[in-house]
Amino acid sequence: MLAPGHRLALRCGRVWLLLLLLLGCGLAPEAGSLLNCPPRCLCASNIISCSKLGLGIIPTQLPRFTAILDLSHNNLTRLRADWTPARLPHLHSLLLSHNALGFISTEAFCHVPHLRYLDLSSNSLKALEEFLFSQLQELEVLLLYNNQIAQMDRSAFDDMARLQKLYLSQNQISRFPVELVKDRAKLPDLALLDLSTNKIKGLPVTALKGLPAWMKNGLYLHSNPLNCDCGLYELFAHWHARQLSSVVDFREELVCSLPQAKRSVSVFTLNRHDSLNCSEFKEHTLEAYLGDTVTIDCDTKVRGATTREWVTPTNGRFPEESANSTMTVLGNGSLQIRPIRVEDMGTYTCYAVSQAFNETLYVDVMVHNFTQHGPHDTLNTAYTTLVGCILSVILVLIYLYLTPCRCCCRSNEKLAAPPEDSINSSMLSTTPNHNPEAGGRKGSLSHLAASGPMQGQNGKVKPNSTPEQAARRAQKAHRKVSDPDSVSSVFSDTPIVV
Amino acid sequence: MLAPGHRLALRCGRVWLLLLLLLGCGLAPEAGSLLNCPPRCLCASNIISCSKLGLGIIPTQLPRFTAILDLSHNNLTRLRADWTPARLPHLHSLLLSHNALGFISTEAFCHVPHLRYLDLSSNSLKALEEFLFSQLQELEVLLLYNNQIAQMDRSAFDDMARLQKLYLSQNQISRFPVELVKDRAKLPDLALLDLSTNKIKGLPVTALKGLPAWMKNGLYLHSNPLNCDCGLYELFAHWHARQLSSVVDFREELVCSLPQAKRSVSVFTLNRHDSLNCSEFKEHTLEAYLGDTVTIDCDTKVRGATTREWVTPTNGRFPEESANSTMTVLGNGSLQIRPIRVEDMGTYTCYAVSQAFNETLYVDVMVHNFTQHGPHDTLNTAYTTLVGCILSVILVLIYLYLTPCRCCCRSNEKLAAPPEDSINSSMLSTTPNHNPEAGGRKGSLSHLAASGPMQGQNGKVKPNSTPEQAARRAQKAHRKVSDPDSVSSVFSDTPIVV
Repeated sequence: MLAPGHRLALRCGRVWLLLLLLLGCGLAPEAGSLLNCPPRCLCASNIISCSKLGLGIIPTQLPRFTAILDLSHNNLTRLRADWTPARLPHLHSLLLSHNALGFISTEAFCHVPHLRYLDLSSNSLKALEEFLFSQLQELEVLLLYNNQIAQMDRSAFDDMARLQKLYLSQNQISRFPVELVKDRAKLPDLALLDLSTNKIKGLPVTALKGLPAWMKNGLYLHSNPLNCDCGLYELFAHWHARQLSSVVDFREELVCSLPQAKRSVSVFTLNRHDSLNCSEFKEHTLEAYLGDTVTIDCDTKVRGATTREWVTPTNGRFPEESANSTMTVLGNGSLQIRPIRVEDMGTYTCYAVSQAFNETLYVDVMVHNFTQHGPHDTLNTAYTTLVGCILSVILVLIYLYLTPCRCCCRSNEKLAAPPEDSINSSMLSTTPNHNPEAGGRKGSLSHLAASGPMQGQNGKVKPNSTPEQAARRAQKAHRKVSDPDSVSSVFSDTPIVV
Repeated sequence: MLAPGHRLALRCGRVWLLLLLLLGCGLAPEAGSLLNCPPRCLCASNIISCSKLGLGIIPTQLPRFTAILDLSHNNLTRLRADWTPARLPHLHSLLLSHNALGFISTEAFCHVPHLRYLDLSSNSLKALEEFLFSQLQELEVLLLYNNQIAQMDRSAFDDMARLQKLYLSQNQISRFPVELVKDRAKLPDLALLDLSTNKIKGLPVTALKGLPAWMKNGLYLHSNPLNCDCGLYELFAHWHARQLSSVVDFREELVCSLPQAKRSVSVFTLNRHDSLNCSEFKEHTLEAYLGDTVTIDCDTKVRGATTREWVTPTNGRFPEESANSTMTVLGNGSLQIRPIRVEDMGTYTCYAVSQAFNETLYVDVMVHNFTQHGPHDTLNTAYTTLVGCILSVILVLIYLYLTPCRCCCRSNEKLAAPPEDSINSSMLSTTPNHNPEAGGRKGSLSHLAASGPMQGQNGKVKPNSTPEQAARRAQKAHRKVSDPDSVSSVFSDTPIVV
C-alpha cells in the first residue's frame, strides 16, 4: 500500500502538468489584484459567494486568496480535476450543497490542500471511490447527507487524520462502515458519524461496545431497518443509561424489524417482547479481587474534558488527596487503585469539566474478598516449592556423604592433633574405613559399643600417655557411653573439665 | 455602564419569562425524541437545513440538540426575540443569508449563547443598534456583508471577546469604526475586519499605523471613496512593502479621490502626482544609542506564529546561540539586545513559522556611536554625587570635632600610663586644655615648638628620674624637633631603642 504522500503525488501529478502548461502559455491567472470577482458572484474580501446563480460550471477565475467559496444552490453536475486551474492555498470552506453533483474526480481536491469544511450535501452522489477524500488531510467536517450513496469504498476516507464530523445520513448505505470506527488510528479525531436514515440492517455490536463514550455519543444510527435482537437492545439500553445524545435525542427513531412482525418496533421495547425474551438491562459493575491493581476509566461522552475529579465511596477527593493513598489519578484522568481492598468497594464518581459542558459519571466497583491467583502466581509458588525440595535433598546429601571426606582428611592429621579431638570425628563417622590404623576391620556402626572404656579413643591406647591421663580418658569414655545426654557436649568446642 | 453579565440578564429577562409561561402551559417543546424535524426541512442528526423553502417565518419546533441551522435563501424579514422559544444550547452555526431581514431584536440571541458562526449577509439591515451582538460572547465569525448598513452604534459589537472575523463589506458605512481596532482589549482576537466597498472617506491614519501587522493584514479598506493625501499613501505603501494581504490582494481596488480631479486614482500613484508631492516611501529603520536595551519585535502578518527564529547581521542564530550573548529571544518572539553595541548594527531577520504559512521579516537596526542619557540616568549620577559630597562633609566634621573627645578621655588616664606614651596624645592634640597640669596655658598649636628640649615631655621634668634617663629623654626630644622624618616613628607601637 502506498503512503499518503505518494498517493497524493501520483494522483495530483496530472493536474500539476495541466497547470504548468497553462502557466507556460501565460493563461494561468495570477494572484492578487489581477484577479477580479467572478461574474455575478458576490465578493467580500476573501469570501466568494456564487450561491443560487443557476451555474452549470464553476467559475475558473477564482482569486488565489479565496478562503470561503459558496457554490450552493446551482446546477453543477460534475466536480472535475481542473475545476480550479489555480491552486487555492487559503480555501478552508467549500460549499457545494444543493447541486446535482453525480461525479467527483479523485483529483478534485489536489489544489485545495487546506480545506477544513466541505459541504456536498443534497447532491446526486451514488458512490464514493477509493481514496476519494484522501487528499483532504486537514478536513474537519464533511457533509454528504441527502445523496444516493450506496457504494462506499473502504479506503474512501483514508488519510483524513483530522476528520471530526462525517455526515452520511439519508443515503442508501446498507453496510455499517466498521473500518471508520474500528481502527482508531485511521480517523483518530472522528467524534461524529451520522449514519441515520440509511439501509443498514446489521451492526457490529461487539466493536461498537468497545468504543469510547465520546464516540458513541456522536454515532447516529436511528431510522435504519435494523434487525431486532437482544444484543441490539443491550447496546442501546446501555447507551441510553449513559445518556448519550445519539440515543437520547433520537429515542423514538431507534427502531428495528422483528422477522415475524410486519412492522418496526422501538429497540427499547425488545425486552418486553415474548419472541425475543431479552433480559432487563443492568449497568455492569467493575469486579476486582483483593490486592488487584484496578484502573477506573472516566469514560466521558464529551471528548477532551479539561479536568477530571474523582470522589470515592468514602468521600475522598482525588487527585486532591493522592498523597499517602493507594489511589492515584493517571494522566488520562483514570483513577488507579493499587492494591484494592475490600473497603474500597462502592460507587466512584468522576466529575469531568470540558470547555462547554460538565459531566458526572458513576462507576460501581465490587471487590471479592479473596485474591485471584493468576497463572503467573501459580508458577511462582511451584518454583519456590521446587527450589525448597532441591535444597533439602542437597543438604541431606551433604550430611550423608561430604562429612566422611572431611574425616578422611583429618585422619591424616591425626598424629599432630591432640587425642581429645578425635572423638568428634568418630562420633560422626559412618564409613567402615574411617580409621584404618586400628580396629579398622570391625563393623563401623558397632565399633563404638564394641570398644571398651579402657581401650581409649578409637580403641587404641596412646603409648606416650601418663597413668593420670589414661584414667581421665577412661572417665571421659565411660561418661560418653553411659550418659546419652552428654552427646551434645561432644559437638562443643570447649574442653571438658572433670 | 453596566457589566456584560448584567446587560445580558436585563435584556434576556423578558424572553425567559415568555419561556417560563410556555413551560407552565405545557406548550414548550421538550428535548430529544418528542421533537421532530421541522416540516419541509432536511435533518441530519444535529443539522437542520431549511434552505430555500420560501419561509416567511422561522419554524418554532426546533430540536434542542440543533448544532447547525440553515435558513438561507428564504423570505424572512424579522428576527424577533422569540424566534426560538426553546433555548438552543448546542447551536454553533446560524445561517440567515439571502433573506430580507430588516429588523433584528436586541434580544434575538438570548437563547443561542454558544453561537460561533452567524451569517447575516445579503439581507436588508440598515442599522446596528447598541449592544446588538453583545450576547454572542462566543461568536467567532460574523458576516454582515451585502446589507444596507449606514448606522452602526459604537457599542454594537461590545463584549464579543472571541470575535475573529467581521465582514462589513458592501454596505453604506461612511465612518471608519475606529472603536473596533483602537482598544485592543475590546475585541482582542479580531484578525479580519472587512470594510471594503463602503462609503468611508477619512481614515485614522495614526491609529492604523500602530496596529500589529497581523491585524493590518486582515484590514480590508479597498473600494472606498477615500480622500487622497500623503498620509494615506505612506500608510498603504508601508503595508504593501510588508506584503500584507489586505493591500497586495486588492492593489487595484485601493483608490482615492483627488479634490481637483474628477476621477479616482490608485493610492500607490500618489507620490507621482504633482498636486500632492508625496515623498517616496522608505521603510523605517530602528534607531538606538550605544548601551541601550533594544527589543526588536517580530511583527508577523500571521497571528500566533508557533516558532520564531532570528538571524543577526553576523549570521548568529537565536534562540539557538542565546547562551553567553547579549541577545535573547523573549517569550513573545521578540529579540532583545542588552546592551547594544555599534557592531550589532545591520539587518535582522525573523523567520516565523505558523500552522499554515511561514513568514520572513527584516528589521534594519542603526546604532549611534554615543550613549543617550535618559532622565533616569541623570538622576542616578546626581544622586551619587550628592551622596559623595555628604559623605565627604561628614568625614571632615568627624576629623575636626570627634577626635578631641577621645583625647579628653585619654588625658584622664595619663597618670597611670607610661610617660613615653603621652607624647602620642600631644602630637595629635588640637585642644588648648589637653594637659591642664603643666604648660596648659600656652597656645595649643604652638606648644610643641615652644617646649624646649630640656623641658621633657609636656614641658615637665619627672622628679624620680635618674640623670641618664633625663639625658636620654633630652636626646629623644631633640630628635623629634630636629628630624621631621621621625614623626612616623611617633605613631609606632614599638619602643625606640637608641
